[in-house]
Formats: sequence, structure tokens, C-alpha cells
Amino acid sequence: MFLRHILNCTTICDAKTVDANASCGEYDFMSATLKAPDPSQPLVTLRDVLAFNVRAHRVANQMSQEQLGFAAELDRTFISQVERSRINVSLDNIEKLALALNVPAAKLLVRP
Amino acid sequence: MFLRHILNCTTICDAKTVDANASCGEYDFMSATLKAPDPSQPLVTLRDVLAFNVRAHRVANQMSQEQLGFAAELDRTFISQVERSRINVSLDNIEKLALALNVPAAKLLVRP
Repeated sequence: MFLRHILNCTTICDAKTVDANASCGEYDFMSATLKAPDPSQPLVTLRDVLAFNVRAHRVANQMSQEQLGFAAELDRTFISQVERSRINVSLDNIEKLALALNVPAAKLLVRP
Repeated sequence: MFLRHILNCTTICDAKTVDANASCGEYDFMSATLKAPDPSQPLVTLRDVLAFNVRAHRVANQMSQEQLGFAAELDRTFISQVERSRINVSLDNIEKLALALNVPAAKLLVRP
């Protein structure tokens, strides 16, 4: 049973859906290292631009994905998906993110 | 019957869902006057800001809603709903609108 838990943790940590530095402890998400986005990553679509900017502003505000999710009334997994360009975010949610990050919404769509 | 048609036309033209200057002829949408957005209208939400900017840039580009819809591969009624803040537009569609209007996407979310 314990081994299975360890294996599950390894799987979760390896998966691209979780920050590489996130711990596998049940309540350790908050302590995940705040890692700024890679400036050399190619930003092809508007989703990529939003992903980059949300992460950059979140890290600049010293917020974890959980904290941003809480402030924006969105789920942590939603924030994670936004930061990996997986979600076609709606205008209302862009507005929530901008409010929580304390930046004008337009700034989230500006190419860095 | 003819009177009823006239009455229907009046009703449709009065409704806020159709441009005030649009004709009631079946194929007359293209000839609707290009009317810039009212600068005194209150822009409360981000939807209002997008609505204002899409209309302003569309009119500046001398495009009808049909022409913008065609260029952005979106339906004319979708454009109409965007310009009336009725739709929670997604990021992918904001990108399509920006491309069709030849402006950076961020510009569509800037408060005028």
C-alpha cells in the first residue's frame, strides 16, 4: 500500500500537469517553488502569451497557483491549465485573473 | 399580410439586437451604415470594453459585421452578440477577431 502511494506520487510528479517542483505531500502544494516562465519559450498562440503572462505576474506577486486560484475564485487545476496553454480561457475568467493579479486585463495579452 | 410584414420590420429594427440603421430587406445587412460606438456609454465589464473596441476597429476598417465575421471565420450573429456584450468570448476567438481587425489582441481589451 505504501509502495503504491510512492509510485502514485512519482507518476503525479512526472506528469506535465503538475509543477516539476511541487511536492507530493497532500498539503504541500502551497510550498511549491515559484518558478518564473522560461523567457526563451516560443509564444505561438494567444494562449501561450496569456500562459506566460499569468505565470510571470503570479510569480512576481509571490503567489502560488492555489493562492491565485483562491483570489480569482478559480480552481488551482484551472490556473495550472491556463499556464500550460491547455484552456481556451473566456473573457470573464481573464477579467478575474487580471483582478486577482492586480494588472489591467490587456496586459495579460501583451507579447513579452 | 403586407402591413404585418411592415410591423414586423419595425419591431425588428427597434429591437436592440439589430443595428439601428440596418435595413429590413433580407439581403440588405451589408449596406447597414457603419456606426461607431457611443463614446459616452459606460464600460463596466471587460465584455463592454471588448464590445466597444471590436465595433470601433470594425468601423475604422470600414467593415460590416458580415465582413468581419467572414474575415474572422465567425458568424455575423456572433459578431453582433460580441458588440452587445452578450457573449463570454474565448481567447481563441479574441485572437481571430484581432487578426481580422489587424490589431494586436491586447488592444481589444484596452479601456478607451
